[in-house]
Amino acid sequence: MQPLGAPVEGPAATAAVTAEGAVNVEGATNAEGAANVEGAANVEAATALVEAIRRELPGVRLLTDELDREAYRLDEAAYLSADLPAAVALPTTTAEVSGLLRLASEHRVPVVPRGAGTGLSGAAAGIAGALTIALTGMDRILEVDRANLCVVVQPGVINASLKAAVAAVGLFYPPDPASYETCSIGGNLGTNAGGLCCVKYGQTRDWVLGLEVVLADGRVIRTGGRNVKDTAGYSLTHLFVGSQGTLGIITEATLRLRPQPGPRSTLLAFFASVEAAGEAVAAMTAAGIEPVTLELMDHPTILAVDDWHHLGLDRDAAAMLMVESDAPGSAATDELDRAEQACAGAGATALVRAADAAEADWLREARRQALRALERQGTVRMEDVGVPRAAVPQLLRAIERITAAHGVRAATFGHVGDGNLHPNFIFDRDDASAAALTERVRDEIFREALALGGTVTAEHGIGVARRAWLPIQRGQDAVAVMRSIKAALDPLGILNPGRML
Amino acid sequence: MQPLGAPVEGPAATAAVTAEGAVNVEGATNAEGAANVEGAANVEAATALVEAIRRELPGVRLLTDELDREAYRLDEAAYLSADLPAAVALPTTTAEVSGLLRLASEHRVPVVPRGAGTGLSGAAAGIAGALTIALTGMDRILEVDRANLCVVVQPGVINASLKAAVAAVGLFYPPDPASYETCSIGGNLGTNAGGLCCVKYGQTRDWVLGLEVVLADGRVIRTGGRNVKDTAGYSLTHLFVGSQGTLGIITEATLRLRPQPGPRSTLLAFFASVEAAGEAVAAMTAAGIEPVTLELMDHPTILAVDDWHHLGLDRDAAAMLMVESDAPGSAATDELDRAEQACAGAGATALVRAADAAEADWLREARRQALRALERQGTVRMEDVGVPRAAVPQLLRAIERITAAHGVRAATFGHVGDGNLHPNFIFDRDDASAAALTERVRDEIFREALALGGTVTAEHGIGVARRAWLPIQRGQDAVAVMRSIKAALDPLGILNPGRML
Repeated sequence: MQPLGAPVEGPAATAAVTAEGAVNVEGATNAEGAANVEGAANVEAATALVEAIRRELPGVRLLTDELDREAYRLDEAAYLSADLPAAVALPTTTAEVSGLLRLASEHRVPVVPRGAGTGLSGAAAGIAGALTIALTGMDRILEVDRANLCVVVQPGVINASLKAAVAAVGLFYPPDPASYETCSIGGNLGTNAGGLCCVKYGQTRDWVLGLEVVLADGRVIRTGGRNVKDTAGYSLTHLFVGSQGTLGIITEATLRLRPQPGPRSTLLAFFASVEAAGEAVAAMTAAGIEPVTLELMDHPTILAVDDWHHLGLDRDAAAMLMVESDAPGSAATDELDRAEQACAGAGATALVRAADAAEADWLREARRQALRALERQGTVRMEDVGVPRAAVPQLLRAIERITAAHGVRAATFGHVGDGNLHPNFIFDRDDASAAALTERVRDEIFREALALGGTVTAEHGIGVARRAWLPIQRGQDAVAVMRSIKAALDPLGILNPGRML
Repeated sequence: MQPLGAPVEGPAATAAVTAEGAVNVEGATNAEGAANVEGAANVEAATALVEAIRRELPGVRLLTDELDREAYRLDEAAYLSADLPAAVALPTTTAEVSGLLRLASEHRVPVVPRGAGTGLSGAAAGIAGALTIALTGMDRILEVDRANLCVVVQPGVINASLKAAVAAVGLFYPPDPASYETCSIGGNLGTNAGGLCCVKYGQTRDWVLGLEVVLADGRVIRTGGRNVKDTAGYSLTHLFVGSQGTLGIITEATLRLRPQPGPRSTLLAFFASVEAAGEAVAAMTAAGIEPVTLELMDHPTILAVDDWHHLGLDRDAAAMLMVESDAPGSAATDELDRAEQACAGAGATALVRAADAAEADWLREARRQALRALERQGTVRMEDVGVPRAAVPQLLRAIERITAAHGVRAATFGHVGDGNLHPNFIFDRDDASAAALTERVRDEIFREALALGGTVTAEHGIGVARRAWLPIQRGQDAVAVMRSIKAALDPLGILNPGRML
């Protein structure tokens, strides 16, 4: 990690996509000095590209009307301003994606790959003069391979649809972002999405066996297949996952599955301080407990969720933990018994077991809706910091201290079992000072997270929202390596420029 | 995958390292045409490098005596011929590794990173005119971090030493190559090593949180830390793991740990045909059983192991499965009961449970020693093919058919639960025709594995042994992407040239 004293250049990344009509595809993404897209040339180049697509790929649905394009301006990071794409293409086959990238390369027009648009980092937001390629039309589950415990999907498949399709044959695809009912697998792959059950089952990358990827110039490669063990060459699969559309466009994925675990047993534990909740988590780790869910909500989040859903949560508690076990047979009860002991030992003020699976499902859904519950109170900016799990109490204290010092309304929840917290800043939409203030608060929290050995993004991605922080977290030399890989795979710098790097 | 009809250029990779004294650092590893190491210049360059190391890094232990260097000529793929390195450096700090690579870059001398030398692909074997950097002296466990379930190690730590150190505090590092008592973590990282418990716990890459890597020019980067979730930038961690020393030298690794599972319960099942054993595996998969070990031995392997260890195995059986469960509490017995049903249903001729943990350990150790047991019968060339797990019976039949057709003595064992088989060819050391014959047999088996959607290497790595097959398996365009990444990170082509790519 670089010294944290290094000056942060403010919201440089946001500037990159909002400079008047100019796409910032600067030398940084292109060490070779190859032809770049610059300023005024964009409009003409984009117009020529649209004409070429109409001529050479007449079957591709292409949106050029301003109202149609407006729906592709933002992703869910709505607090970031973004530009209107020059056009939006909706391919339905790999060959069409290949043709689009070949033409975009020929015309030197940048491309923004986009899934369902539920991202929280601005990585799929529009770029002026660029072509947005939305993969929503490629939404088929091509094969559920029960014998090999895998599934082959197109990128536009919705996470929940995939889960349902494999559950129907007794199998389980674990990654479960809170947005799982609306987010697409392509977006999950782009950000290496996580979710509630990461603590036991890992993130999206851990479930990918192979990809079909269209490269910047339109060539199509495969990075793996249905082998669970395969160490032939560099692991391009792992590299493309999490690259937020900056290295290629994923047009097919082969994902691992596992047998459907048993029903979940659920424990809620309430605490008089966030420190006590943190101690309970540490005690569970020390006891070797491996919950499938280990979530925290702080006091403001408990109130927001309870106000909305009337769950009868302990509204006086400073923190709540939700602990779930899907261990087989009686092991689940044993595990929750041990979790309860750990919580009691840390001073839990109340311990509640879900009465049955339906109640457990309902509680989990309430946790998933925490962001929506907060959004009833105002505009919410959600962050995504992570720390080594033992440092969670320190991070929670830092978040409380920093938000209080700046007088910012905040609510924190998250995946405490793997050190990933989501501090949320709540403000009025018409508060002109909110953007700058939340940016300052965020920057202070990032510094604290990095000082604890943490990360500025555990599961949402760098995108544009956190771009200035990547070199601070990883170091200039590591980012130089990333830039050299970007330049090697995308020498013209057309793939999602200004995002991540 | 490319059409399998494409001509294989014979043992091109072997040739690359045995051409008379010339290191084959051809354009292939260096798309940019930068200064290359070629032919006669090598000896002078290596001599100048040795002098520079003595002058600038006087603390680094340097072997230049021919007898000393001889120990670094080969790895465990002893059937591959290889050259004597010009010199061998034994650094003890990251700064020394950095200095060595800076000087090697300045002098344009290729470098071979080497761990314990137990590799089975020739990737750590000597290159004439090159400097071998052996990491065996960097063998410290720097920290066992119980609170964060991770451990920080240097690359020279022996796998078994790491397991023992973390077991002492109740934790578990799963990856367990058969050579775990002699192989080093650095080598495990280089090949993405597997082992017996991959079927449940995955390969080495799945257990790496972060690396310290020295780049070709001597710069030092960190790719991650102790965060279990961290999606900031490209996952360089996953890229360096499995890159066999062609992208940088790993000088430190932060590895995940998990709670020590319970003792293992063990089932042996014997079958009258390999197909029946394959059906039993498929039935276990369909039943959702998740064993920690699911190993197969064929008839010749059963005989070899039993001849040596007198275990009382069923010597008439065509195949044996070893199934282990480490599920918590009574779930282990339940799991083996269900495995036994699946085996019985597939026609098992005998079913035996290990009497206790000691007997289970002994049986597992016998399986680990299968290669050594075969080596009592002659020189053994071990291969490492993998297929989607449902295709294992087809691959087993193909191996039997091909080896029989060529009159080659063969024995197959492996990690059948994840589709990874090790066919072994046994021949007399002084049989001059053996090398060419086993090469032909191997090539036919590779074609069959690829036709089944498989891989030419599941856990041993491409190295030099399988280099000609990488483009056949992955396709020329995917390999071109790998080459471009190699050129980006190692523009002078000094890192382990002629290996993998």
